[in-house]
Amino acid sequence: LPAAASGSFPRVARESNPGGSHIQVGNVRFGDGNFVIIGGPCSVESREQIIATAKAVQAHGALMIRGGAFKPRTSPYAFQGLGWEGAALLAEASRVTGMPTVSEVMTIDQVDRMATQVDMLQIGARNMQNFDLLKAVGRCGHPVLLKRGLSATIEELLSAAEYILSEGNPNVVLCERGIRTYETATRNTLDLSAVPVLRERTHLPVIVDPSHGVGVRRWVPAMCRASKAVGAHGLILEVHPNPPEAKSDKEQALTFEDFAAIMADLATIPLSHSIPQVTA
Amino acid sequence: LPAAASGSFPRVARESNPGGSHIQVGNVRFGDGNFVIIGGPCSVESREQIIATAKAVQAHGALMIRGGAFKPRTSPYAFQGLGWEGAALLAEASRVTGMPTVSEVMTIDQVDRMATQVDMLQIGARNMQNFDLLKAVGRCGHPVLLKRGLSATIEELLSAAEYILSEGNPNVVLCERGIRTYETATRNTLDLSAVPVLRERTHLPVIVDPSHGVGVRRWVPAMCRASKAVGAHGLILEVHPNPPEAKSDKEQALTFEDFAAIMADLATIPLSHSIPQVTA
Amino acid sequence: LPAAASGSFPRVARESNPGGSHIQVGNVRFGDGNFVIIGGPCSVESREQIIATAKAVQAHGALMIRGGAFKPRTSPYAFQGLGWEGAALLAEASRVTGMPTVSEVMTIDQVDRMATQVDMLQIGARNMQNFDLLKAVGRCGHPVLLKRGLSATIEELLSAAEYILSEGNPNVVLCERGIRTYETATRNTLDLSAVPVLRERTHLPVIVDPSHGVGVRRWVPAMCRASKAVGAHGLILEVHPNPPEAKSDKEQALTFEDFAAIMADLATIPLSHSIPQVTA
Amino acid sequence: LPAAASGSFPRVARESNPGGSHIQVGNVRFGDGNFVIIGGPCSVESREQIIATAKAVQAHGALMIRGGAFKPRTSPYAFQGLGWEGAALLAEASRVTGMPTVSEVMTIDQVDRMATQVDMLQIGARNMQNFDLLKAVGRCGHPVLLKRGLSATIEELLSAAEYILSEGNPNVVLCERGIRTYETATRNTLDLSAVPVLRERTHLPVIVDPSHGVGVRRWVPAMCRASKAVGAHGLILEVHPNPPEAKSDKEQALTFEDFAAIMADLATIPLSHSIPQVTA
Repeated sequence: LPAAASGSFPRVARESNPGGSHIQVGNVRFGDGNFVIIGGPCSVESREQIIATAKAVQAHGALMIRGGAFKPRTSPYAFQGLGWEGAALLAEASRVTGMPTVSEVMTIDQVDRMATQVDMLQIGARNMQNFDLLKAVGRCGHPVLLKRGLSATIEELLSAAEYILSEGNPNVVLCERGIRTYETATRNTLDLSAVPVLRERTHLPVIVDPSHGVGVRRWVPAMCRASKAVGAHGLILEVHPNPPEAKSDKEQALTFEDFAAIMADLATIPLSHSIPQVTA
Repeated sequence: LPAAASGSFPRVARESNPGGSHIQVGNVRFGDGNFVIIGGPCSVESREQIIATAKAVQAHGALMIRGGAFKPRTSPYAFQGLGWEGAALLAEASRVTGMPTVSEVMTIDQVDRMATQVDMLQIGARNMQNFDLLKAVGRCGHPVLLKRGLSATIEELLSAAEYILSEGNPNVVLCERGIRTYETATRNTLDLSAVPVLRERTHLPVIVDPSHGVGVRRWVPAMCRASKAVGAHGLILEVHPNPPEAKSDKEQALTFEDFAAIMADLATIPLSHSIPQVTA
Repeated sequence: LPAAASGSFPRVARESNPGGSHIQVGNVRFGDGNFVIIGGPCSVESREQIIATAKAVQAHGALMIRGGAFKPRTSPYAFQGLGWEGAALLAEASRVTGMPTVSEVMTIDQVDRMATQVDMLQIGARNMQNFDLLKAVGRCGHPVLLKRGLSATIEELLSAAEYILSEGNPNVVLCERGIRTYETATRNTLDLSAVPVLRERTHLPVIVDPSHGVGVRRWVPAMCRASKAVGAHGLILEVHPNPPEAKSDKEQALTFEDFAAIMADLATIPLSHSIPQVTA
Repeated sequence: LPAAASGSFPRVARESNPGGSHIQVGNVRFGDGNFVIIGGPCSVESREQIIATAKAVQAHGALMIRGGAFKPRTSPYAFQGLGWEGAALLAEASRVTGMPTVSEVMTIDQVDRMATQVDMLQIGARNMQNFDLLKAVGRCGHPVLLKRGLSATIEELLSAAEYILSEGNPNVVLCERGIRTYETATRNTLDLSAVPVLRERTHLPVIVDPSHGVGVRRWVPAMCRASKAVGAHGLILEVHPNPPEAKSDKEQALTFEDFAAIMADLATIPLSHSIPQVTA
């Protein structure tokens, strides 16, 4: 990969670790040579829901569980998540399955406590430029999944990651999740070209969230294939035992059967090391 | 694939041909079961250039040649293409290689004459809503490659295709080529989610133009893989014997070696019929 | 006004006529010191409709009439305009009122004939980069109203104007009409900041189309005030005798009473020469 | 103004207070019949800087002072503001001039302390959907200036305000500050059409920030005029004693002389009550 300008994100720039970083989260490793699937519901809703989902996604090849405890919702009157009870249920699902977990933190004072409950802290799209929260997860040292903001440029995503690394935490995985454009057929516009650009400019691993990217379940399988083919280091997918009953994001949640079919299909897509390099 | 609303584009809507259309262009067929690569320069520049390029892309598996004779350029002082001389050279490259050709028409009075020179007429992004031009290629009956406008919605692309079909020409292939967003790292934002959406809503084949999508040669290979994986019916790629000397779009043109490497890689990506269908 | 780079549009750049151009259209003059209102229906629908509207807008202070004869419509099945019959009716309204007229041309072969019917040729937003049409109106010499494309940058608008001037026609008025963004509350996002940017970069007059900018009648009056205050040289407004019965754009058409109220209000907004110049 | 749907923001919707709210901030009142100018530097940099600026803007008619103590900066290595020292200096400028103040809070734990230092808490664009911060300023009860997010829809801005009101704090003023679009000539695209839309949908006052909207000093005067003409209840403007030396946003800061000229010009633009109402 060609060298990137190290401008305003020296710790994040590819030159600072040309071979690429490997980020360890429990027994899972993000980086070249791996393709990590994180599956789980948008929101943790109950013990039965999260444990059943964790077992199902594990059975089909997922390596990590996701589940929201604190949910950023556009309306104050929408379901806001189970809070610490949700985090505890996610931790229980981790103990039952042995898989590491990721869940979102929305405030500074949630950071250290959430780090005792889950293996990776998610910074959501709406908080990508909540700079004090970035510093807080930087100081915490726990692995971080940093999602691209709804209208963040790639440069801004890298600068946001630099906030975390500059506080001493190198354990950051980036996530493309769709950007806001004029197109309304899809929930967002999944910017898969961000993957090769990010892989050139930074040593940090990059995963993709097709569920939020398109927002409609039946278009998710195609975007999963494309995400692996384009060179992402993994995927994060929303899976629910019964999508029509989900308390959030029910249009985009996959059933267990859907998830199984996608996992089988992904096995046919080659890993990123086979992507040709062209004339500079 | 689920049924699409037939609203304002009844002839284009999937319901009007649920099995999907196959569009024949010379000896090439677009539609399910095929993945067609169109290669060639942005602009036809000389006999040597177009014939060398045609032979090179054919040797590596391309099935069609592209080459611009009339070029839509932002500035009136930029190279505007060789015009009919370019079209004649492209026709000669077709005779030499046996491959069908595609070239852009920009005005109504070019349509019938260009149809005598090339096998497929391209409507460029800037003319996607040049409705009289759409009607003219509709009346002509020649196969049409219709590119999505720079800020066209998927609905508008389908309505533009309906203009062509409503004049009696069913031979239309759609092309996603990147949309205009706030992101400046790439030339455009290639909207690969448009592929599954279009495949659901229309029976017409859909190809992708990664060259214009990202605008930078070294990100093209990853986008080619993603485009095949996401379910496109083919690709159109810019290839030039010597990109730094190209008269237009030199940053995104592939060398022959680049093209060869991409073609070899694409062979490892499965065709669209293996994309799982999920719960409706 | 500071000097603009003359880069790719030397004839259009402010430096080529620092004092600003005055464009004469019949008995109307666009440029500093004037604020020209063009009023009329989206489409010419009948003799009664266009003559009644012309008389009404004239009575309240409009200086020009607009009316579409050839209409660019997203769907081929929507009303496409009355064509040359519409142009003739518009010419009749001009004879009755003495006001000059503007109407859109969509194809090269309409240009010379339309120039015999109306005083100013409009290039619509969808054709802003229909370069052969730009050249044709350039050769024609008739005054041109050039609307900004739906997702055109200011640079691209100026380059489009350069196409017209480079063919020998200096009589161009630019029009900001709203750009495509993610916001859906309004039909487009009226980019009023384009007015001071354009006034700095070019000597050509700039008017605003609030009707298409917001797409909803009740927000038009506020945008008219803002358009005059920001320094535009005029407005083009959609007015209809009975908006709910309009064959196109009925949501944004003003009644005669609405138009009268807006005209009275605009008289209270100062002209652009009073805008302060600040530290460079 | 027509009634707005009360959907997801019942406390914020126009129907809940059809006459419009008046928000008191110290001795300043936002709402119909007033046009409030807030002036001051992007960042508080020193006692001399903030006091000189406060006196200058007051002398020319500003009613409030702005000044950042905690600055959201894209890069962790950029100047981050003077923190509490900056807040104390702003408070001192308030004592000297008698004008109320506004400054941004970026974290929950800054809220109550900042409320002892300034008269109004600003929620910046990047934090518009930092929902826990919204709740915190809601519980605090202090007046809030809520800026629209970089790619927030008008609906999302209203929902963000609902978070604050739902915690019992009705003292919210909204601020349009430009949205992110594809256009690069200006820093953002100032969406002035948001003003009439917001005035229809909510009873809360709406001000405009032309400085961030365009990002270039010499286009600010025109946008100030337009902002008053379009019906905003006020402006927030960046003013600095010596813009080339400003530690942040130096391209868009006005000199004292610039500010004086703008204030004199704004006196010629009529208040919003004269905007005509049109046929519903």
